[in-house]
Amino acid sequence: MQTTNKILLGHGSGGRMMHNLITELFARHFNDPVLDQQTDAALLSFPFGNLAFTTDAFVVQPLFFTGGDIGKLSVCGTVNDLVASGATPLWISAAFIIEEGLEVSVLEDIVKSMASSARQAGVRIVCGDTKVVGKGQCDRLFITTSGIGQVQSQHLRIATGELITAGDHIIISGTLGDHGMAVLAARNELGFASKLLTDCAPLNLMVQPLLDENLDIRFMRDPTRGGLATVLCEIAENKDFGIIINEEQLPVSEAVRGMCELYGFDPLYIANEGKMLIISSPKDSSRIIEILKKSPEGRQATLIGEVSNDHTAKVLLKTQIGGTRMITMLAGEQLPRIC
Amino acid sequence: MQTTNKILLGHGSGGRMMHNLITELFARHFNDPVLDQQTDAALLSFPFGNLAFTTDAFVVQPLFFTGGDIGKLSVCGTVNDLVASGATPLWISAAFIIEEGLEVSVLEDIVKSMASSARQAGVRIVCGDTKVVGKGQCDRLFITTSGIGQVQSQHLRIATGELITAGDHIIISGTLGDHGMAVLAARNELGFASKLLTDCAPLNLMVQPLLDENLDIRFMRDPTRGGLATVLCEIAENKDFGIIINEEQLPVSEAVRGMCELYGFDPLYIANEGKMLIISSPKDSSRIIEILKKSPEGRQATLIGEVSNDHTAKVLLKTQIGGTRMITMLAGEQLPRIC
Repeated sequence: MQTTNKILLGHGSGGRMMHNLITELFARHFNDPVLDQQTDAALLSFPFGNLAFTTDAFVVQPLFFTGGDIGKLSVCGTVNDLVASGATPLWISAAFIIEEGLEVSVLEDIVKSMASSARQAGVRIVCGDTKVVGKGQCDRLFITTSGIGQVQSQHLRIATGELITAGDHIIISGTLGDHGMAVLAARNELGFASKLLTDCAPLNLMVQPLLDENLDIRFMRDPTRGGLATVLCEIAENKDFGIIINEEQLPVSEAVRGMCELYGFDPLYIANEGKMLIISSPKDSSRIIEILKKSPEGRQATLIGEVSNDHTAKVLLKTQIGGTRMITMLAGEQLPRIC
Repeated sequence: MQTTNKILLGHGSGGRMMHNLITELFARHFNDPVLDQQTDAALLSFPFGNLAFTTDAFVVQPLFFTGGDIGKLSVCGTVNDLVASGATPLWISAAFIIEEGLEVSVLEDIVKSMASSARQAGVRIVCGDTKVVGKGQCDRLFITTSGIGQVQSQHLRIATGELITAGDHIIISGTLGDHGMAVLAARNELGFASKLLTDCAPLNLMVQPLLDENLDIRFMRDPTRGGLATVLCEIAENKDFGIIINEEQLPVSEAVRGMCELYGFDPLYIANEGKMLIISSPKDSSRIIEILKKSPEGRQATLIGEVSNDHTAKVLLKTQIGGTRMITMLAGEQLPRIC
């Protein structure tokens, strides 16, 4: 923490600065091997079994956007963190920090949305807390959800990344950048309405059949803040393998592509809230994609690249015109308060 | 939610308004029997055992006060919610919402304090999240902690209140109002320094021997927001018993008593963060107090009243001059952002 003495927006970005903050401050002081694994959910050896435990604060602005809201996001985000850990999500907690003056009807719409998402995912919201702060002391509403899931022993190593090996296939369950662009479009400052839809959805029903069939999944992660690029960089960092992805195979909707070009964003770095990155053995990738495509959330699932012995610890993009470009973590914040 | 269409400070008070918000909005939409129990931590029948799961958002202002800070508070608060549920606290998650511009040194002091409290309590902080919002979009720092604990089958009914019966004894583990008055004193607007110390402390080491000895505990609760009065009112509400407490037995420090008189507060309604209310069978109350007194946090443990067949569903205070006064829940907010 020598480079700055103030918290900047970039510290919440999901990129390099947040990575450093977590490693050099939180992980150092909390000093726990489970926390050091930096998986999305803590894998905990309960006396008689294994549970996954995760938490996320949601501060998205605005509270409502096309296809979703902070409530739906808070449930799906926590469900998906558990799913990425190979867990079956079971229970969720919800803590609300509310600005004095928030309309009760707004809060009620959001609570209903959370309840609906929880029903859709088959998880139960089982505990909560409410705090209210004065006018101007927070921005309308923040929600923190935590989640507990159950992990079968054979899936305990999916979240850590330790199973990844050269030759593995890299699969994404659908189009990139939908959530980030939907939230950006919903912000008043852009001054135009948009049909850009968030992809926000619970992914446990899509992923569970992969676990049930015991397919050879080496790693999963939902690429939220920082986008797919940041997750791939985290995976390859300090490893004896590299990652190659093919630009022409990356699924991006026309609407997202157009908006990214307009505003100078790269969809690889834009947040998703209903997509799963799956790394699998080459033998099982076709079957995995076949199963994903059966779910509404996975209809555009596709192979996008592979793990390689070349370019150790690096992520390379093969461009459509035949070149290669190195993918790095963002240094700071691209889109604050996207989730 | 017909009485108001805006969230007011009172909705975060721990009193009647928050009670209504929880019952009529959150509980109604989330619609889960575990949530409906309104215990501090969710009691969950894990496939092979019982775990407790709880969450709390902390928005205390200022971040530092005599004897504690928001970090210590966030760990102790969650530990104590688990303890009150008859659980042995195991794991904690921590989610941070940080205002752009917060000094890293301030955050580091708070993180250290969390780590220290976790070590003291013997719990592990195993997952977390960080969000940063823009200047003016939150008030420096909010922390939400969630916790998981293990509950022995014989202690599963302590949190629900269903074991309470007329004749039971009511014990408080120490002086009332210390936390609330310490935070109030630390607020600049009061304009004077204070030696008022928060009681903020993890209570698991104090309570565990009671569980190990299988003493006949009928109920436990840590009286935080809304103070002891609010907890007692919640216990008696809609029940076929009443509660009588004796004013002259209520432990209140001279400093807290003086400050309460100065500002017109009643220590019965002031938040505590290191006290446990214990209701037990009459036969075990002496032994419970004896054990509590062996811990630094329980040295002033004392019997303060009993559960009675008179005054159904009511809480009565026998005053020092021999009268009786009915204790009711606060209607709104007395001290916002006390935890």
